[in-house]
Amino acid sequence: MGKNIEIRFRHWVYVDGIKFFGPGRVALLEGIQETGSIVKAAKSMGMSYKKAWAMVDAMNTYGQEPYVITQKGGQQGGGAQITGTAVKVIEAYKILNEKLLRIVEAENELLDLI
Amino acid sequence: MGKNIEIRFRHWVYVDGIKFFGPGRVALLEGIQETGSIVKAAKSMGMSYKKAWAMVDAMNTYGQEPYVITQKGGQQGGGAQITGTAVKVIEAYKILNEKLLRIVEAENELLDLI
Repeated sequence: MGKNIEIRFRHWVYVDGIKFFGPGRVALLEGIQETGSIVKAAKSMGMSYKKAWAMVDAMNTYGQEPYVITQKGGQQGGGAQITGTAVKVIEAYKILNEKLLRIVEAENELLDLI
Repeated sequence: MGKNIEIRFRHWVYVDGIKFFGPGRVALLEGIQETGSIVKAAKSMGMSYKKAWAMVDAMNTYGQEPYVITQKGGQQGGGAQITGTAVKVIEAYKILNEKLLRIVEAENELLDLI
């Protein structure tokens, strides 16, 4: 039986040499979008709230526009939603992902050698 | 002053779901090629000998052909060299890297949004 050989890749956006956006932040933003909450999104990823908050804060601080808007207070202890900027960045990130995937899927030489 | 925004990527070959080849192993193999020694290659990367040896062993075990040949004994305590297979895989890996780099370098939409 042949072995299952595949190429996997990841890509990130760096701003001034610091990781700004990548697969982890896409997942976090999508989790916030789904649950309306940073706490719940972090929990669903097995990530600490502290780390999730630091990610949100970094995006909101270093991006041109905020990525996540939080509301304080209320019966649910506040909530969070992602902005139109976040939606657009996620979309552009995924389009690039598709482009890279097409290159990787067309790659045979490397796989045949392994 | 504008921010320096760039996309970085990494890619790996997985065999049966296990990481088989990627940037770390390219660096290790090139270090072995340069120094003729797993110990020296590991040291130059700040990697433990144990980890370097485990990487070499995994490549030799799960690849179609060996990637590193070791010689035991002698005044220098043995040496190591990489095989033609390793050279070819490194080359194919770098060619794929160039292809992915061309896609990433042509990407503007994502960068403009960040």
